[in-house]
Amino acid sequence: MTDDLPNPALLPAGLADLLPPEAEREAALVEAMMAVFASHGYERVKPPLLEFEDSLLAGSGAAVAEQTFRLMDPVSQRMMGLRADTTPQVARIAATRLGALPRPLRLCYAGQVLRVRGTQLAPSRQLPQAGVELIGGAAPEADAEVAIVAVEALAAVGVSAVSLDVTLPTMVPALLDVAGAEGALRHRLARALDRKDSAAVAALVQGQGPALAVLPALMAAAGPADGALAALDAAELPPAAEAIAVNAASVLGAIRARAPGLRITLDPVEFRGFRYHTGVAFTLYGPGMAGELARGGRYVSQNDEPATGMTLYPDAVLRAAPPATPRPRLFLPPGVDGARFRAEGYATVAALAPGDTPQRLRCTHELRDGRPVPIPAKD
Amino acid sequence: MTDDLPNPALLPAGLADLLPPEAEREAALVEAMMAVFASHGYERVKPPLLEFEDSLLAGSGAAVAEQTFRLMDPVSQRMMGLRADTTPQVARIAATRLGALPRPLRLCYAGQVLRVRGTQLAPSRQLPQAGVELIGGAAPEADAEVAIVAVEALAAVGVSAVSLDVTLPTMVPALLDVAGAEGALRHRLARALDRKDSAAVAALVQGQGPALAVLPALMAAAGPADGALAALDAAELPPAAEAIAVNAASVLGAIRARAPGLRITLDPVEFRGFRYHTGVAFTLYGPGMAGELARGGRYVSQNDEPATGMTLYPDAVLRAAPPATPRPRLFLPPGVDGARFRAEGYATVAALAPGDTPQRLRCTHELRDGRPVPIPAKD
Repeated sequence: MTDDLPNPALLPAGLADLLPPEAEREAALVEAMMAVFASHGYERVKPPLLEFEDSLLAGSGAAVAEQTFRLMDPVSQRMMGLRADTTPQVARIAATRLGALPRPLRLCYAGQVLRVRGTQLAPSRQLPQAGVELIGGAAPEADAEVAIVAVEALAAVGVSAVSLDVTLPTMVPALLDVAGAEGALRHRLARALDRKDSAAVAALVQGQGPALAVLPALMAAAGPADGALAALDAAELPPAAEAIAVNAASVLGAIRARAPGLRITLDPVEFRGFRYHTGVAFTLYGPGMAGELARGGRYVSQNDEPATGMTLYPDAVLRAAPPATPRPRLFLPPGVDGARFRAEGYATVAALAPGDTPQRLRCTHELRDGRPVPIPAKD
Repeated sequence: MTDDLPNPALLPAGLADLLPPEAEREAALVEAMMAVFASHGYERVKPPLLEFEDSLLAGSGAAVAEQTFRLMDPVSQRMMGLRADTTPQVARIAATRLGALPRPLRLCYAGQVLRVRGTQLAPSRQLPQAGVELIGGAAPEADAEVAIVAVEALAAVGVSAVSLDVTLPTMVPALLDVAGAEGALRHRLARALDRKDSAAVAALVQGQGPALAVLPALMAAAGPADGALAALDAAELPPAAEAIAVNAASVLGAIRARAPGLRITLDPVEFRGFRYHTGVAFTLYGPGMAGELARGGRYVSQNDEPATGMTLYPDAVLRAAPPATPRPRLFLPPGVDGARFRAEGYATVAALAPGDTPQRLRCTHELRDGRPVPIPAKD
C-alpha cells in the first residue's frame, strides 16, 4: 500500500505523505516513547508551531535560524517563524510560564518541525521530534538520565542494540584556547580534526606546545568508552580540558551504573553538529544501517540555567523498529453490531452498500456462524 | 510590560502553549479517539503541514483559502500554504497515492491546522484536528457511520450526552432555485433565514409561489429530529427539495438504528458554516456550555467522488472531557531502581543532586520500607 516514490509535481521536495500503515505506526511509536518519558516524571508541553522569530531564534534557536521558515503575522505585523527545533520553545516555556516551578524541571514534547532546506543525506523538510529536557540540573547524573531515558524509550518500541556515541564538543576549543591557537592554525586544525586526518593533525601540532600535543593521542583514543576514558586519563591535559574529561568520566560512570549492557563509544575530539552544546553531547545510533535515532546533550537554557536533553527522531525510529502486526479487518454485514469484535482487537469494516464485498473492503476476516474466520487469500 | 521591550513570554495572538497536565491529556484524548476510528477500519494518513497552495486550496480547500498562511518555497520558487484544514489533503491522498485502492476508502488523521486570523468567538489560530473521511461511498449509511463513529470516539474519552445537530445546507438553495429567486429577493431571504427572522421570511415569501411558501413551515420545524422529519414529510416540496428530505430521513433512520439513545436535532433551513457540503451536514455539541466538538457531513471529493466525513476538535473535547487522574509522582532516592514502580503506574522522579528533595521534585509519594506511600500535604 505504500508507494515510496512521491510524485514531485504533487508535493514540495522534502515534504511527504505518510500512508497506511506507517502513519499509525509512527504515531504509536511516538506515544509509546512519550509514555516512557512520562514514567520518569517528564511532563508534556505543547508549544505552538509558529511564534515570533525573536523568541524562536533566541538561545539555542540561533543554531537553526537559517533553517527557519519566516512569515509575516498579519495581526501584529511582526515576523513569525515556523519552528525548526523544539528545544528553544521548551527553554522559553521553562523560563517564563514555568519559571516559578522549583528546579530541576523535567519536560517532554512531541511534534513536527520544519526546515527551509533538506540536505542530500537528509532530504526531509518536515521532521517529527519527540524529546526530553531536564532544566536546572547541573549534575552528571542529569546527563546520564536523559541518555538512559532515551535508550529506554527506544527499547519500549522494540529498538534495542543501540549504540550511544558520546562526544565532548568543548574539548577541542578548550585546547585551542589554552594553546592560544588563532587564525590560520585554528582553522586548519579544526578542518583536519573534522576530516579525521591524523597525519595533518600531527604535522600541525608539531612545536605548538603541550596543549595541542595531546591532540593526536585524543584522536587515536576515539572508540569504545572504557579505552577512550583511559586514554583521556593518561593524557597530560591542561586544567580546562582536564575538567571536561573528569565530567565525561562522571557522566559515563553514571550511565554505566544504570545501563551496564549499553554499547558506548567516546570520541573526545569530535565536535561536528553540536552547535550549542556546552558539555557532553550524545548521538544514539540504531543497529545495522538504521542511522541516527536521537541527539542531545548539555546546553545552557534561558536565564543561564544548566540544562540537558535528548531529541528522538520518530521517522528514523520508524525505520529501525520492527513492523507493526497488521490489525485484522473483519467484514461486517449490514445490521450486525461489531462492538464485541472491536473489543477483541478487530477493525470492523461495515458494508454500507450492496457492492461492499469483503474483497473491496480489503478484509482479512469474515463472520461464519457469528465467529470471525480468516478469508483465504486468492491466488 | 512596554511596547519597546517585548515580553519573551508573549506569543502571537491566538497561539498558545499547552502546559502540563493539559498537553498530555490532549494527546491522550486524540490517540483514544484515533483508536476508535481505527477500530472501525479507518486507516491513518499523515499529510505534511506545508504543501503547494494549488493542491492545498483545490476542492474543499477553497473554503479556507483566505485563512491559509502562504509562504514561498525557496527550493521550487512556488507558493506553499500552511494547512488550514486537513480534509483537502486527505482528498488529494485518496485521489492520487491511494487512487488505485477499491472504494469506499476509510481514512483518518490527526494533526494541527493554522489559520491566518482568529475570530472573537474562536481566537485560536492553531487548532488540533482529528477526523475521519469515508471516500467513494454515496449511501446514507455512510453519513450515518461517520456521525456514529464520532459520537463513539467522544464517548471513549468520557464525553457523553452529546447532541447531534443535522442541517441540510442544500435545501434553501434548492428551493430558491426552483422558485427562480435571484438578486435582492434571494439575498434578503438568505439574510432573514440566517437571522432566524420568521416574520421577515413570511413577508418575503408572500406571493412568491409554492416553492418558497414552504419556508416558514420548514423554519418552524427546526428542533428534535422526529418532529422536524414529520414536518418535512408534510410539506409540499418540489422534487429537488423532496429528494433532499428523503435522503435526510434515510440518514437519520440509519443513525437511529445504530444509536437509539442519541439526541438529534434537525434544522432544514440552516446553512451557515457549511461551505462545501452537498448533503446532510453535522455538528456535534457537548453537554452544557461545552460548545461545538465536531463538524462534518457529505461533500464531493477529488475526481467527483462522493465522500462524507467528520472533524473532531480536540481542544474543545479537552474542555468537555472529565479531567485526567494525575499520575502519582514517586521520589526516587539515588541508586534506587524505579522500574518496578513505573510498571505500577508511578512516575518515578529521580534525585540527581543533594538539593533534589521530594518537595522540590513535586512528588506525591515517597518510598518507606521499599513501598510507595503518600507524602502528607503541608499546611
